[in-house]
Amino acid sequence: MYYAVIFTSTRTVIEAGYTEMAKKMVELAKAQPGFMGVESARNEIGITVSYWDCLAAIQKWKTNMEHLEAQANGRTTWYKNYKVRIAKVEREYEF
Amino acid sequence: MYYAVIFTSTRTVIEAGYTEMAKKMVELAKAQPGFMGVESARNEIGITVSYWDCLAAIQKWKTNMEHLEAQANGRTTWYKNYKVRIAKVEREYEF
Repeated sequence: MYYAVIFTSTRTVIEAGYTEMAKKMVELAKAQPGFMGVESARNEIGITVSYWDCLAAIQKWKTNMEHLEAQANGRTTWYKNYKVRIAKVEREYEF
Repeated sequence: MYYAVIFTSTRTVIEAGYTEMAKKMVELAKAQPGFMGVESARNEIGITVSYWDCLAAIQKWKTNMEHLEAQANGRTTWYKNYKVRIAKVEREYEF
Protein backbone atom coordinates (compact mmCIF):
# COMPACT_ATOMS: atom_id res chain seq x y z
CA MET A 1 0.00 0.00 0.00
CA TYR A 2 1.34 3.41 -0.93
CA TYR A 3 0.28 6.93 -1.80
CA ALA A 4 0.32 9.13 -4.89
CA VAL A 5 0.57 12.92 -4.78
CA ILE A 6 -1.00 14.27 -7.96
CA PHE A 7 0.25 17.79 -8.64
CA THR A 8 -1.46 19.52 -11.58
CA SER A 9 -0.51 23.06 -12.55
CA THR A 10 -0.74 25.83 -15.08
CA ARG A 11 2.38 27.93 -15.57
CA THR A 12 2.79 31.67 -15.90
CA VAL A 13 5.02 32.93 -18.75
CA ILE A 14 7.88 33.49 -16.31
CA GLU A 15 10.74 31.11 -17.08
CA ALA A 16 13.45 32.59 -14.83
CA GLY A 17 14.47 30.06 -12.21
CA TYR A 18 11.72 27.57 -13.02
CA THR A 19 13.75 24.74 -14.56
CA GLU A 20 16.40 24.96 -11.82
CA MET A 21 13.73 24.88 -9.10
CA ALA A 22 11.87 21.96 -10.69
CA LYS A 23 15.08 19.96 -11.06
CA LYS A 24 16.20 20.78 -7.53
CA MET A 25 12.84 19.76 -6.06
CA VAL A 26 12.99 16.38 -7.81
CA GLU A 27 16.50 15.80 -6.46
CA LEU A 28 15.44 16.89 -2.99
CA ALA A 29 12.28 14.72 -3.05
CA LYS A 30 14.38 11.71 -4.07
CA ALA A 31 16.48 12.19 -0.94
CA GLN A 32 13.44 12.15 1.40
CA PRO A 33 12.51 9.14 3.54
CA GLY A 34 9.53 7.32 2.09
CA PHE A 35 10.01 8.59 -1.46
CA MET A 36 9.24 5.88 -4.05
CA GLY A 37 9.31 7.63 -7.42
CA VAL A 38 8.13 10.56 -9.53
CA GLU A 39 6.74 11.00 -13.06
CA SER A 40 6.16 14.27 -14.87
CA ALA A 41 4.78 15.62 -18.13
CA ARG A 42 3.74 19.07 -19.32
CA ASN A 43 1.84 20.51 -22.30
CA GLU A 44 -1.00 22.97 -21.69
CA ILE A 45 -1.04 21.73 -18.13
CA GLY A 46 1.65 20.03 -16.10
CA ILE A 47 1.08 16.81 -14.21
CA THR A 48 3.61 15.51 -11.71
CA VAL A 49 2.80 12.39 -9.74
CA SER A 50 5.08 11.40 -6.89
CA TYR A 51 4.79 8.17 -4.92
CA TRP A 52 5.33 7.79 -1.16
CA ASP A 53 5.17 4.93 1.28
CA CYS A 54 3.06 6.70 3.92
CA LEU A 55 1.15 9.90 4.66
CA ALA A 56 3.74 10.96 7.24
CA ALA A 57 6.43 11.02 4.54
CA ILE A 58 4.22 13.25 2.36
CA GLN A 59 3.52 15.59 5.27
CA LYS A 60 7.22 15.84 6.05
CA TRP A 61 8.07 16.59 2.42
CA LYS A 62 5.32 19.23 2.27
CA THR A 63 6.92 21.08 5.18
CA ASN A 64 10.56 20.66 4.12
CA MET A 65 12.14 24.16 4.35
CA GLU A 66 13.51 24.32 0.80
CA HIS A 67 10.27 22.88 -0.53
CA LEU A 68 8.22 25.48 1.38
CA GLU A 69 10.35 28.19 -0.19
CA ALA A 70 9.79 26.70 -3.65
CA GLN A 71 6.04 26.52 -2.97
CA ALA A 72 5.97 30.20 -1.97
CA ASN A 73 7.96 31.22 -5.07
CA GLY A 74 5.71 29.01 -7.14
CA ARG A 75 2.64 30.93 -6.02
CA THR A 76 4.19 34.37 -6.63
CA THR A 77 6.12 33.60 -9.81
CA TRP A 78 5.82 30.35 -11.73
CA TYR A 79 2.28 29.05 -11.35
CA LYS A 80 -1.00 30.59 -12.38
CA ASN A 81 -2.70 27.87 -10.40
CA TYR A 82 -2.10 24.41 -9.08
CA LYS A 83 -3.93 21.62 -7.35
CA VAL A 84 -2.56 18.90 -5.12
CA ARG A 85 -4.40 15.64 -4.50
CA ILE A 86 -3.18 13.05 -2.04
CA ALA A 87 -4.51 9.62 -2.95
CA LYS A 88 -4.11 6.10 -1.62
CA VAL A 89 -3.22 3.63 -4.39
CA GLU A 90 -5.66 0.76 -4.01
CA ARG A 91 -4.86 -1.34 -7.05
CA GLU A 92 -2.60 -1.28 -10.08
CA TYR A 93 -1.79 -3.24 -13.19
CA GLU A 94 0.52 -2.77 -16.10
CA PHE A 95 1.44 -3.75 -19.62
CA MET B 1 -14.63 11.25 -1.63
CA TYR B 2 -13.68 10.22 -5.11
CA TYR B 3 -11.13 8.21 -7.09
CA ALA B 4 -8.29 8.99 -9.48
CA VAL B 5 -7.16 6.65 -12.24
CA ILE B 6 -3.52 7.43 -12.99
CA PHE B 7 -2.58 6.14 -16.45
CA THR B 8 1.12 6.48 -17.29
CA SER B 9 2.43 5.28 -20.63
CA THR B 10 5.30 5.21 -23.08
CA ARG B 11 4.36 5.35 -26.75
CA THR B 12 5.67 3.39 -29.69
CA VAL B 13 6.60 5.38 -32.82
CA ILE B 14 3.31 4.39 -34.48
CA GLU B 15 1.11 7.46 -34.95
CA ALA B 16 -1.62 5.96 -37.18
CA GLY B 17 -4.94 6.13 -35.40
CA TYR B 18 -3.52 7.22 -32.07
CA THR B 19 -4.84 10.79 -31.89
CA GLU B 20 -8.30 9.72 -33.06
CA MET B 21 -8.42 6.92 -30.48
CA ALA B 22 -7.24 9.17 -27.65
CA LYS B 23 -9.79 11.84 -28.52
CA LYS B 24 -12.58 9.28 -28.87
CA MET B 25 -11.76 7.70 -25.51
CA VAL B 26 -11.91 11.08 -23.77
CA GLU B 27 -15.31 11.78 -25.35
CA LEU B 28 -16.54 8.31 -24.42
CA ALA B 29 -15.24 8.57 -20.84
CA LYS B 30 -17.01 11.92 -20.44
CA ALA B 31 -20.29 10.22 -21.32
CA GLN B 32 -19.93 7.53 -18.63
CA PRO B 33 -21.84 7.62 -15.34
CA GLY B 34 -19.60 8.67 -12.47
CA PHE B 35 -17.05 10.48 -14.65
CA MET B 36 -15.81 13.68 -12.97
CA GLY B 37 -12.97 14.96 -15.14
CA VAL B 38 -9.73 14.16 -16.98
CA GLU B 39 -6.32 15.80 -17.31
CA SER B 40 -3.54 14.80 -19.67
CA ALA B 41 0.04 15.71 -20.57
CA ARG B 42 2.76 14.00 -22.58
CA ASN B 43 6.50 14.46 -23.14
CA GLU B 44 8.85 11.47 -22.76
CA ILE B 45 6.03 9.78 -20.90
CA GLY B 46 2.31 10.42 -20.96
CA ILE B 47 0.23 10.91 -17.85
CA THR B 48 -3.55 10.91 -17.95
CA VAL B 49 -5.48 11.21 -14.72
CA SER B 50 -9.22 10.69 -14.78
CA TYR B 51 -11.51 11.24 -11.83
CA TRP B 52 -14.51 9.09 -10.89
CA ASP B 53 -17.08 9.14 -8.14
CA CYS B 54 -16.84 5.43 -7.22
CA LEU B 55 -14.94 2.22 -7.95
CA ALA B 56 -17.96 0.72 -9.71
CA ALA B 57 -17.87 3.53 -12.30
CA ILE B 58 -14.17 2.82 -12.94
CA GLN B 59 -14.82 -0.89 -13.29
CA LYS B 60 -17.65 -0.24 -15.73
CA TRP B 61 -15.48 2.11 -17.80
CA LYS B 62 -12.66 -0.44 -17.82
CA THR B 63 -14.95 -3.04 -19.37
CA ASN B 64 -16.76 -0.71 -21.82
CA MET B 65 -16.66 -2.49 -25.21
CA GLU B 66 -15.14 0.35 -27.24
CA HIS B 67 -12.67 1.00 -24.43
CA LEU B 68 -11.68 -2.69 -24.33
CA GLU B 69 -11.02 -2.54 -28.06
CA ALA B 70 -8.88 0.58 -27.61
CA GLN B 71 -6.96 -1.12 -24.79
CA ALA B 72 -6.25 -4.15 -27.00
CA ASN B 73 -5.10 -1.94 -29.89
CA GLY B 74 -3.06 0.07 -27.42
CA ARG B 75 -1.12 -3.01 -26.40
CA THR B 76 -0.47 -4.18 -29.97
CA THR B 77 0.13 -0.81 -31.60
CA TRP B 78 0.44 2.46 -29.68
CA TYR B 79 2.00 1.73 -26.30
CA LYS B 80 5.40 0.28 -25.45
CA ASN B 81 4.18 -0.01 -21.89
CA TYR B 82 1.64 1.45 -19.55
CA LYS B 83 0.64 1.34 -15.93
CA VAL B 84 -2.73 2.01 -14.36
CA ARG B 85 -3.13 2.94 -10.71
CA ILE B 86 -6.52 3.32 -9.06
CA ALA B 87 -6.28 5.59 -6.05
CA LYS B 88 -8.71 7.02 -3.53
CA VAL B 89 -8.32 10.80 -3.18
CA GLU B 90 -8.04 11.46 0.54
CA ARG B 91 -7.30 15.16 0.62
CA GLU B 92 -6.69 18.03 -1.76
CA TYR B 93 -5.85 21.71 -1.80
CA GLU B 94 -5.24 24.26 -4.47
CA PHE B 95 -3.79 27.63 -5.38
